[in-house]
Amino acid sequence: MLNGGVADVTGTGTMSASTMLGQGPRIADFLAPIASELAEAERIFAQELGSRHPFVQQLVDHCSAFRGKRLRPALVLLCGQAVGRLTPDHPVLAAVVEMIHTATLVHDDILDESLVRRHAATINAEWGNETAVLLGDYLFTHAFHLAASLESTLACRWIGRATNLVCEGEMNQVHHRGDLDLDESTYLDIIQGKTAELIAVSCKLGAHYAGADVETTERLERFGRDLGSAFQIADDVLDLWGEERVAGKSLGTDLFKQKLTLPVIRLLNVAPLEVRREVHGLLNQPGPETRRRLRDHLNAYKTLDYSWTIAGRFVESSLEALAILPPSQARTLLEAMARSVLRRDR
Amino acid sequence: MLNGGVADVTGTGTMSASTMLGQGPRIADFLAPIASELAEAERIFAQELGSRHPFVQQLVDHCSAFRGKRLRPALVLLCGQAVGRLTPDHPVLAAVVEMIHTATLVHDDILDESLVRRHAATINAEWGNETAVLLGDYLFTHAFHLAASLESTLACRWIGRATNLVCEGEMNQVHHRGDLDLDESTYLDIIQGKTAELIAVSCKLGAHYAGADVETTERLERFGRDLGSAFQIADDVLDLWGEERVAGKSLGTDLFKQKLTLPVIRLLNVAPLEVRREVHGLLNQPGPETRRRLRDHLNAYKTLDYSWTIAGRFVESSLEALAILPPSQARTLLEAMARSVLRRDR
Repeated sequence: MLNGGVADVTGTGTMSASTMLGQGPRIADFLAPIASELAEAERIFAQELGSRHPFVQQLVDHCSAFRGKRLRPALVLLCGQAVGRLTPDHPVLAAVVEMIHTATLVHDDILDESLVRRHAATINAEWGNETAVLLGDYLFTHAFHLAASLESTLACRWIGRATNLVCEGEMNQVHHRGDLDLDESTYLDIIQGKTAELIAVSCKLGAHYAGADVETTERLERFGRDLGSAFQIADDVLDLWGEERVAGKSLGTDLFKQKLTLPVIRLLNVAPLEVRREVHGLLNQPGPETRRRLRDHLNAYKTLDYSWTIAGRFVESSLEALAILPPSQARTLLEAMARSVLRRDR
Repeated sequence: MLNGGVADVTGTGTMSASTMLGQGPRIADFLAPIASELAEAERIFAQELGSRHPFVQQLVDHCSAFRGKRLRPALVLLCGQAVGRLTPDHPVLAAVVEMIHTATLVHDDILDESLVRRHAATINAEWGNETAVLLGDYLFTHAFHLAASLESTLACRWIGRATNLVCEGEMNQVHHRGDLDLDESTYLDIIQGKTAELIAVSCKLGAHYAGADVETTERLERFGRDLGSAFQIADDVLDLWGEERVAGKSLGTDLFKQKLTLPVIRLLNVAPLEVRREVHGLLNQPGPETRRRLRDHLNAYKTLDYSWTIAGRFVESSLEALAILPPSQARTLLEAMARSVLRRDR
């Protein structure tokens, strides 16, 4: 368990000790002020995806179990509340971004050959890759169909652009698989595409549809982008140090798929030659013991500490972006949400 | 080769002998009057998909080779010409439907484990399933992004609805894999979703954006839907009787994937019990010889003849839908295109 097991190696100077130790609130704690809009988004989500084919309906119902945190819908709604008033468009947009996110989860599980997500079988594990490819497509096309129910093309354009970048980021990551020379800036470029863009556009849409001006909308987009980068680094740390029982999903898939993430990149940057050679050997032939053996080296060179520092900088930057907003409950919740991002039981 | 090799078993009474024997024009022959708009659609297609990542650009360039026939863009443009004047929106719409079509090809090749398409390696064969999943997603999201560059949400809505139905049709097909009791009406329902809907919406968009009234737009949508069903039946016939060298793609994948198509469904409806038993055995354990052994039975019970008859009825119905249009070169070309659908070298 991340919060307990690795607390001894954290502490970066940029984050408060209580956040580092995972004592802050969970994302669920932030949702009370937007509960009715979130429920409406759920209703729209289910209605849009309903199918006359029982098999399709079964798949849709199953993958709803994957969506535990509702991070992106919550951001659409809280960013809207932080800058103005929510409109009937907000729950629609919240459902759209969650649908896109669910599509990427279903397809990611194919790429990672994952078997478990949120304690449920993945679509590929239960029904095979073909069904998972098609269900992901179904989620993508319904998301755009739903976005097109709004009055203007703006949401379709913004979400289209963001998902274009998500796909490019993911392709870039696949391209760099097995590349032991991957540098930190390429890694950050990849995670900005594959994770941060969708979170950024969620915040941007929430702000714009609540009447925010261009500057405020851009600020909230930046908030989302930095939050998303911090979030992905924390997720990559979890893949190396977390426990599957707690995480509720397959772990170690980055190593298995020879995807280099920040702690490993850091290790290869700072360790002496003989350690680098051993790590190269482990990464070139990943097996069931790789994660455990690698972790000794990762701990010895304080790579977890370093990764938290970088994630912490993104959190700080995201908080700075919010400074433009007037004080409000929603702003406080967004700030708390950003601070909690390094908790892995959220 | 279908036109030569199986010409002896065709001839249904509903189609002219020359069409049945494949003596009609090819789709390429219909494109001259819309050559400049097609070229503009190609330019938009390439521009929309351009990437700063060389790897992504390489994939985009590669899959352009798959798009030989340009059937859907041609239908957008010819349906527009047949009812009114083409606008600058038409080449955009033509590029959008071609992008959606290309996305489904890239993902279909994963589902079918196909190795070759249009004489080129499939994305999954050359770069693996992960890259193929992501490239398909990239094509889908760019298609919607491009559709959202038009003034209203109408194109996004219509294309969203059509692609929802495409995905449902495909999932329905996967669900019925190995189902030896699949009946003809379920088969027709599946192909209407997976193939006919995108062709229908191509025609509908072409007509609407050229200023057609509601009735004419609906007629052209029906033309496309019937044409699409005929087209898919012809494609399913090719999968059983065609030659890979001529078709330029992997064949026999329906059998390999235990997908029952019209000729096999017909065989199981009309053959005596002992033949049905043997066919069940072949379908339950498909191997390299299955296609050849099955073909003897399919030929003996005139299932190709029957399939052409059904496809011919769809062609007739598509022609009827065009009767509302005033005479024009575009209408004549649409009619010829419909009549040529049973040619497999088009």
